[in-house]
Amino acid sequence: MFVEADPYPWPYDGVLVADRLALVISGAQRWFYERTAQPDDALGRIARIVLLLRPMGATILAVRHGSDHGHQSRPVLPKIGGADHELIIEPSVADAVIDAEGMDAFYGSNMDAYLRARGIDTLILVGLGLEGPIHSTMRSANDRGYECLLVSDASAPHDPSLVRAALSTIAFSGGIFGAFAPTAAVVDAVADFTTSPTYSGALP
Amino acid sequence: MFVEADPYPWPYDGVLVADRLALVISGAQRWFYERTAQPDDALGRIARIVLLLRPMGATILAVRHGSDHGHQSRPVLPKIGGADHELIIEPSVADAVIDAEGMDAFYGSNMDAYLRARGIDTLILVGLGLEGPIHSTMRSANDRGYECLLVSDASAPHDPSLVRAALSTIAFSGGIFGAFAPTAAVVDAVADFTTSPTYSGALP
Amino acid sequence: MFVEADPYPWPYDGVLVADRLALVISGAQRWFYERTAQPDDALGRIARIVLLLRPMGATILAVRHGSDHGHQSRPVLPKIGGADHELIIEPSVADAVIDAEGMDAFYGSNMDAYLRARGIDTLILVGLGLEGPIHSTMRSANDRGYECLLVSDASAPHDPSLVRAALSTIAFSGGIFGAFAPTAAVVDAVADFTTSPTYSGALP
Amino acid sequence: MFVEADPYPWPYDGVLVADRLALVISGAQRWFYERTAQPDDALGRIARIVLLLRPMGATILAVRHGSDHGHQSRPVLPKIGGADHELIIEPSVADAVIDAEGMDAFYGSNMDAYLRARGIDTLILVGLGLEGPIHSTMRSANDRGYECLLVSDASAPHDPSLVRAALSTIAFSGGIFGAFAPTAAVVDAVADFTTSPTYSGALP
Repeated sequence: MFVEADPYPWPYDGVLVADRLALVISGAQRWFYERTAQPDDALGRIARIVLLLRPMGATILAVRHGSDHGHQSRPVLPKIGGADHELIIEPSVADAVIDAEGMDAFYGSNMDAYLRARGIDTLILVGLGLEGPIHSTMRSANDRGYECLLVSDASAPHDPSLVRAALSTIAFSGGIFGAFAPTAAVVDAVADFTTSPTYSGALP
Repeated sequence: MFVEADPYPWPYDGVLVADRLALVISGAQRWFYERTAQPDDALGRIARIVLLLRPMGATILAVRHGSDHGHQSRPVLPKIGGADHELIIEPSVADAVIDAEGMDAFYGSNMDAYLRARGIDTLILVGLGLEGPIHSTMRSANDRGYECLLVSDASAPHDPSLVRAALSTIAFSGGIFGAFAPTAAVVDAVADFTTSPTYSGALP
Repeated sequence: MFVEADPYPWPYDGVLVADRLALVISGAQRWFYERTAQPDDALGRIARIVLLLRPMGATILAVRHGSDHGHQSRPVLPKIGGADHELIIEPSVADAVIDAEGMDAFYGSNMDAYLRARGIDTLILVGLGLEGPIHSTMRSANDRGYECLLVSDASAPHDPSLVRAALSTIAFSGGIFGAFAPTAAVVDAVADFTTSPTYSGALP
Repeated sequence: MFVEADPYPWPYDGVLVADRLALVISGAQRWFYERTAQPDDALGRIARIVLLLRPMGATILAVRHGSDHGHQSRPVLPKIGGADHELIIEPSVADAVIDAEGMDAFYGSNMDAYLRARGIDTLILVGLGLEGPIHSTMRSANDRGYECLLVSDASAPHDPSLVRAALSTIAFSGGIFGAFAPTAAVVDAVADFTTSPTYSGALP
């Protein structure tokens, strides 16, 4: 059971176990909403994926990226505590909200501790900011040994002309940062998953 | 005194102090040499920048990126201890060799501790693997508050067709990950620097 | 201007600057309250120190220590989200509440990012759990280069018979983890501080 | 199969698997040798434990603790690169030498990445500096979820009068930082281990 992804069927070992899986929603914040292309399309697909994965027993995480750095004039990240920093999705959608102090969800956060304490080692990445928070988080997760899938059409880009390059970078050299696939491929895989006789999830 | 860079004159505050500055050479290893385009051109420009910055008193760091992860079949990073992992530049070129366990020079390394112990907060990034180790390191450094400049023609890309996108991502939104400039702009800035009456570096 | 401390006048360079200083209150939680000796005495002294340092412009931080680890039966830390995990001091006392996933306030938290973004490099440590969260945080802070003072009578011990040893460990070898002093010494130092002609703080 | 330890039979789940186990030797350096009591006794016991654990397939790690911090006059840690920083045991004894920038072996090092990449989650701690590097490393390991045993008579103290307190701190509250046992208890457990019919290690 796996997702038909580029550049390899994901996850690499073909084993997708719900309680080792988290969906990571990055950048669902006002600041990123205003700096990404067609964020509502991505948010719709994210909602669909949440509704698919939650009943299986997967963990849903929403990451609020922000920064306290006050010494630089350029707009690096939303200011922590400001209106731009707030989530624009209902927090109750997520099992936990992770506050990170960087583009990378693992920086200045409990992300790694949270995942490790639960034995989660497989991540599906979505959100607002394909080249920004989603890419930074995927790179960092990969260094840490997490197996990652980026859902391409559930990840709104800052600049639509950079999408192909952002996805090509992931796929470089046989999947240097993991793999990517559209929402439809995740839906298909989960359909297989929930009808499989070996399924041991929480569906009635 | 600053470098003419995109999307802003670098560093952001116009103050370049040699003992707060490090040149970070990523991926000067066999593994990356074989996976980047025209690496010798980049290595030549890196040598030139080293020769410029060293007499000023800037710190020169060479990062060896590697991984111990044995459970994944895809070639994520050179295996630590293997021939592909070795530096292809003379280690004595650098003040220190940093061993990192990821694309990100800050992961599984003493990079942050090393820089902080010396009061270094400004980084010039070069090497082999523009979209790989150089981008990961720049993203991570930026999250940590380091002010970063990527030298575009001293950073060999994995895929030349992705260079424009990799640079555009840095410059997004007024310089979301810092700035970039060609070697010539660094040379010009340092020429100004070393002839400035306020210069307090180590030149005779 | 400095605090009369053991084993050296603190801070080491005699320079105490309010906007580089944070008071770190660890373990002011139900769980630690029930596992420390005379916690109310410590809480009273902590309140006094807060009232002294806040008008100077120092940052006040309250750390909630907790853990998600579910695989171990022994009571390592309060369970995140449980009643034992909640602060027993008014959160508004602090400029920020730091959530940490360990005894060490720097683990699984934004502690380091928070302090660095504000240029804070000097810490006064108090709370409930001298040998537990306070010691772990002091050790970790010292590794990171922060200059630390533990206020001995504002740090309730888990076991009163271990206090002398916990303080001796700090002072070993000329102050291997920093210095310690009683509340009275901090009060005296701040009295000097606020009447000094070079004072540049926020007092009217 | 477990070690008779205080305050609980170790490890907590009674399962000791050689390829999930590492022996961590901290502070076997000139600097710590000169600052601990009876270091040769500890080094002898460490050698015995190495000879027991290595044939089972456990990983042996030697940690060099050092610091680059130059701004403080007190002797926090051996200076990196100095003679005091060097190992005083044969490096070939260990499968890897970990360079750490703190008392805590996890700070500024590849320690966590190294262990995770190999699926190691159980640590036996020994070395020179019971209250120093060994305690700091045990605290940090415990926060990260590693199950830890400190071998009391293979851990030379800085101050022999603090040994009881250092061990009591570990055992507090049912084993707040893990457990401790003498070398003899480890020897007994391994004897059981290697004669057990379920043993699957590397002994001939």
